[in-house]
Amino acid sequence: MSETPGLQSSSRMHGGRVETLRHASACSACDMQLSVFVPPQAEQGPVPVLYWLSGLTCTDENFTTKAGAQRWAAECGLMLVAPDTSPRGEHVPDDPEGAWDLGHGAGFYVNATQEPWSANYRMYDYVVDELPALIEAHYPVDPARRAISGHSMGGHGALVAALRNPGRYRSVSAFAPICSPTRCGWGHKAFGSYLGDDRAAWEEHDACLLIERRGCELPLLVDQGDADGFLDAQLRPELLHEACATAGVELELRMQPGYDHSYFFIASFIEDHVRFHARHLGA
Amino acid sequence: MSETPGLQSSSRMHGGRVETLRHASACSACDMQLSVFVPPQAEQGPVPVLYWLSGLTCTDENFTTKAGAQRWAAECGLMLVAPDTSPRGEHVPDDPEGAWDLGHGAGFYVNATQEPWSANYRMYDYVVDELPALIEAHYPVDPARRAISGHSMGGHGALVAALRNPGRYRSVSAFAPICSPTRCGWGHKAFGSYLGDDRAAWEEHDACLLIERRGCELPLLVDQGDADGFLDAQLRPELLHEACATAGVELELRMQPGYDHSYFFIASFIEDHVRFHARHLGA
Repeated sequence: MSETPGLQSSSRMHGGRVETLRHASACSACDMQLSVFVPPQAEQGPVPVLYWLSGLTCTDENFTTKAGAQRWAAECGLMLVAPDTSPRGEHVPDDPEGAWDLGHGAGFYVNATQEPWSANYRMYDYVVDELPALIEAHYPVDPARRAISGHSMGGHGALVAALRNPGRYRSVSAFAPICSPTRCGWGHKAFGSYLGDDRAAWEEHDACLLIERRGCELPLLVDQGDADGFLDAQLRPELLHEACATAGVELELRMQPGYDHSYFFIASFIEDHVRFHARHLGA
Repeated sequence: MSETPGLQSSSRMHGGRVETLRHASACSACDMQLSVFVPPQAEQGPVPVLYWLSGLTCTDENFTTKAGAQRWAAECGLMLVAPDTSPRGEHVPDDPEGAWDLGHGAGFYVNATQEPWSANYRMYDYVVDELPALIEAHYPVDPARRAISGHSMGGHGALVAALRNPGRYRSVSAFAPICSPTRCGWGHKAFGSYLGDDRAAWEEHDACLLIERRGCELPLLVDQGDADGFLDAQLRPELLHEACATAGVELELRMQPGYDHSYFFIASFIEDHVRFHARHLGA
């Protein structure tokens, strides 16, 4: 392994370390920041990795500082990798009205084909290809043992990345994912902007449609709070439930009574998700 | 119990709830914000309380969103209360140069006697008297079972509050406390500004001098990272060790190899602190 590129900070945590990196991303045509948790077991040899995709308005920091996942990743011997949610920088186009659901902080994990987005907004390729290649070149990880998870927009991203790339991940989970972006306001706005009118492209980024068309062999765990203010209009877990039922796909969908959309919800159940992935990764 | 005053938000977490409150503080002559974690056991009857005092630049949010203490407080049945670190508001004086170690975010848990601070900067009385009275009036807590902890400036605040008020707390702990503010730069600046030249007043807010003069009957746990950039100039745990040795006070001082001053350090050991307090509180 070569030297870690662009190490911004390193702090000891739970016997391992939390690192922040910056690197020149080819996909995003800008510097991208990410956070990595290296568990203590990585000193003995390659460990499996859980990728985490965050939601609208987040950076790599939210999950790293708020979810408490490192406690369980250190116990199980899992590396955690949390990228940013979009390209960033003064030269990277943003929504002209400064909306929080488009542009910076809202890459939606697609490869934009429309202007002014197409030069930088390629978060799908970034997450599926460039990021794992970077991690696997610089950290002691086992490339055959990847898992992916995320929250809200990132739950959508995790599901789509896993569903479209059979064999690339061993398990997938999500907290309050946007289950069917072709059928909610956030998805319409983002896909319309980044992908234009090409409905076929939209459908390739809709977890429910992908499951109905291709099925899913992966272990699949979803937690959703029933007091989540975005539940009915944006997240729509009932569509994921229906898609899995139609396709004969096994889904563990847990409706959590009284929980909202915040990181307090994620922190409450992250232990279960880390253990779920660790089990399927043989960690 | 009367209705919770100024409830700003409530989120379910670990089977309990995280609440943010605002109230008109008599001590501080301004509105003060605080965070409370109510464990699930509070539905069955009064629970003990752990007060947490944060460090320089923090608000009530840092501990609440980053430390991960709720996981263990929910298991042990402890309420957590995290106040802000100073009075706030446009009418509340701040350091004219905007320094982060004086004024807003830097109350230092003393009662200021000097101008322009004396009308608002009374964090000692706020933490020791007004805050517990507020909590005990509105939440199902057992007033005979209080503990206190904190980080850095808040570690100093927790030690001093416990040492000066025998019988008020059952246990005290700290992460990287400012052990002897009469002998470090942060303390000189804050005490000089808030308390003026009155050295006797300074000494009443120095944990080491208090221990040497009055001893300490309370269980006392301190964690300190040995890669903490403030260790030698500001924190000086060796002075606490010496004071306890001189006074015959039992201190569990754990030097944690490789850990820095951040919340990643706190999150790594907060479980031990919550369990330590729970044990002494009979939770």
